[in-house]
Amino acid sequence: MTPTINADRLWQSLMEMARIGATPEGGNCRLALSAEDAAARALFLRWCRELGLHHEQDAIGNMFLRREGRQPTAGAIAFGSHLDTVPTGGRFDGPFGVLAGLEIMRALDDAGLRTRTPLELVNWTNEEGSRFRPAMMGSRVHAGDMTLEAALAITDDAGISVAQALRDSGQAGPLPPSPRGWACWLEGHIEQGPVLEAGGTDIGIVTGTMHARYFQLTVTGEPSHVGPTTMDRRRDSLAAAAEIILAVERVALDAEPLGRASATWIDNYPNARGNVANVTRLHCDVRHEHAQRAIAMEAALRQAIEAIARRRQVQVAVDPYATFGPVEFDQMLCNVLRGKAEDRQLSTRDMIAAAGHDSVLTAPLCPSAMLFVPSIGGITHNPKEYSTPEQVARGAQVLLDTVLELAG
Amino acid sequence: MTPTINADRLWQSLMEMARIGATPEGGNCRLALSAEDAAARALFLRWCRELGLHHEQDAIGNMFLRREGRQPTAGAIAFGSHLDTVPTGGRFDGPFGVLAGLEIMRALDDAGLRTRTPLELVNWTNEEGSRFRPAMMGSRVHAGDMTLEAALAITDDAGISVAQALRDSGQAGPLPPSPRGWACWLEGHIEQGPVLEAGGTDIGIVTGTMHARYFQLTVTGEPSHVGPTTMDRRRDSLAAAAEIILAVERVALDAEPLGRASATWIDNYPNARGNVANVTRLHCDVRHEHAQRAIAMEAALRQAIEAIARRRQVQVAVDPYATFGPVEFDQMLCNVLRGKAEDRQLSTRDMIAAAGHDSVLTAPLCPSAMLFVPSIGGITHNPKEYSTPEQVARGAQVLLDTVLELAG
Repeated sequence: MTPTINADRLWQSLMEMARIGATPEGGNCRLALSAEDAAARALFLRWCRELGLHHEQDAIGNMFLRREGRQPTAGAIAFGSHLDTVPTGGRFDGPFGVLAGLEIMRALDDAGLRTRTPLELVNWTNEEGSRFRPAMMGSRVHAGDMTLEAALAITDDAGISVAQALRDSGQAGPLPPSPRGWACWLEGHIEQGPVLEAGGTDIGIVTGTMHARYFQLTVTGEPSHVGPTTMDRRRDSLAAAAEIILAVERVALDAEPLGRASATWIDNYPNARGNVANVTRLHCDVRHEHAQRAIAMEAALRQAIEAIARRRQVQVAVDPYATFGPVEFDQMLCNVLRGKAEDRQLSTRDMIAAAGHDSVLTAPLCPSAMLFVPSIGGITHNPKEYSTPEQVARGAQVLLDTVLELAG
Repeated sequence: MTPTINADRLWQSLMEMARIGATPEGGNCRLALSAEDAAARALFLRWCRELGLHHEQDAIGNMFLRREGRQPTAGAIAFGSHLDTVPTGGRFDGPFGVLAGLEIMRALDDAGLRTRTPLELVNWTNEEGSRFRPAMMGSRVHAGDMTLEAALAITDDAGISVAQALRDSGQAGPLPPSPRGWACWLEGHIEQGPVLEAGGTDIGIVTGTMHARYFQLTVTGEPSHVGPTTMDRRRDSLAAAAEIILAVERVALDAEPLGRASATWIDNYPNARGNVANVTRLHCDVRHEHAQRAIAMEAALRQAIEAIARRRQVQVAVDPYATFGPVEFDQMLCNVLRGKAEDRQLSTRDMIAAAGHDSVLTAPLCPSAMLFVPSIGGITHNPKEYSTPEQVARGAQVLLDTVLELAG
């Protein structure tokens, strides 16, 4: 019996998971290491235990669910994604990859098949970085891109540390985070863009990622009174930040269509109605498919910021705090994914991922690749995020076929 | 013995008050109805009780300290200001008016003099409006410009209501807020601008105030992902808000030197590093010496906002929530203030107040006027806010001379 994805079961699992942290708009809010995240992990763990998967968890909360192989000493084929979401999250970004992995395990059980190579299904901690920056925190610590100590000390906007959140949510595992000698890594994900849908394409083969550069800006002006302070005497940090936000947008518009830049987060002080603001902080990122272009975008932005600071007589401190990519995924793995899709008469297209993914961190550790399924309307990080039951089942089937090919 | 301001005592009281809610930068943070505000009120009350002043307090927390006159049935001469500050407050904005009033009471005691007319010294609740909008809340409720019920229901950014804050700080008095039949009202204040200092002028005679219009804006876009979402597909509420902040500034620059406009407060959702923002709220105000010009500024701003909203495909809701002025203060009172300053060989200058003050609310109830003392560098709502001991003493002396003239 050939192992086959059960499309209904996969869809039901996605919808059951989506009830945890459901928002009134029909989306999901499961911030990393929140009570909702903990509930999602508990449900996932229950499903895994029903299959007899062996559970290990590391000190940053990454979950590893192992299906033993006929050759237990072989490096495992690993796959998965993340269950945490952004505050305005949908039901697919993250959970698709984890639950497609779960469905692969179930389909193998249905078929009574044990692979030669062990399989490991992974749920990474804090992929989104909404609550605790930076994004891909769990896979960063796993890969040694960031120390455990540095990650544990990071705090959210309410001042709660990652260490505290891990304890509070019961997610601090005993394992020291470190690479696990995997044979390879595969991640299924929704596209988060309109390209596959627009082209009527079933499967995206992700050959690499953009280069992204994240930084925090602190604009410091001078407090003053909104009434008597004439416009020429103001050193308004919020007005300066507003110019910077538009400069961020400008460097992206100048680098279209492959460039993106965003100001996403703002904190303003004293944020009082009688006061011209004097300290405004921003989080921004620039990204481009070509690393040199992303670097040039940052340089252009820094130049614009300097001009704004000079003209408005404010100080602007630029604090780069993270980058990712560019990554080229493993060509052989991409070839297998593409071949398996074609075997199923599915159309494919090679793509570059614009967003960060945990696969960026596994890529230096072992051959890694990603597969995308279409996002309806390209809508993502949005309650309206949607892929059809057929689309997610097709993606899961190609992943399953690939795992079988590789695991023997 | 002619009653005379004790400059040292006034300065010491100002400096002692400034220790409550002192900030590392040398300023003060005593938000309305905070623990710091309550401590400032307790110190003020202790000083008043040492003088035997009769204390009454109303349900919105306004404090009235009465020195009885030889003719107790006469309408009182009232004066004072406020002890609350903005988060980046200095040591003079508010406390000068209250403690100059206290020094007047002390000087009258020194001279063993009882006026014909009773005197009332007032500390108004929440003049600044930093924590609870709108500003001048205590005097608004006193004057019937706002109902007590409406004020009590207002919440701060942490969701604490005015009613709760009044209870928690022990400042809810038994008196129903209402006008007290005053003969007149006088308020001493720092200028909060550079005009007096620049002209080497001792005393500003405030003949009226600007017209100010406050509103909240809510910009609603669409959530999306910072990575895959190309710039043309974004409906970024923060970028739209940035344009609006600059449009606010623009309408003021077009109305210089008498126009001012400010965006002071911002709240951004989801304020998450992986997300294009979809709901951004702003608080803004426009103001001008001429009411029609302020109204025209608002109209120009609304037009700019509509163009931004159309171009960026976002919704912007404009919610006006308060106005003040224009007010013309009582000419006769201004004449007395000016005359008393000249009697002391002090230079004077007539001025229009750009900021809101509690005097705006007393003006419809009884003849009202204000006196300004210089602000060094025009710096205000800032820890560096400063007036010299001589400057504050001169202002207090003119107020005392005026009270004596009016109170018989």
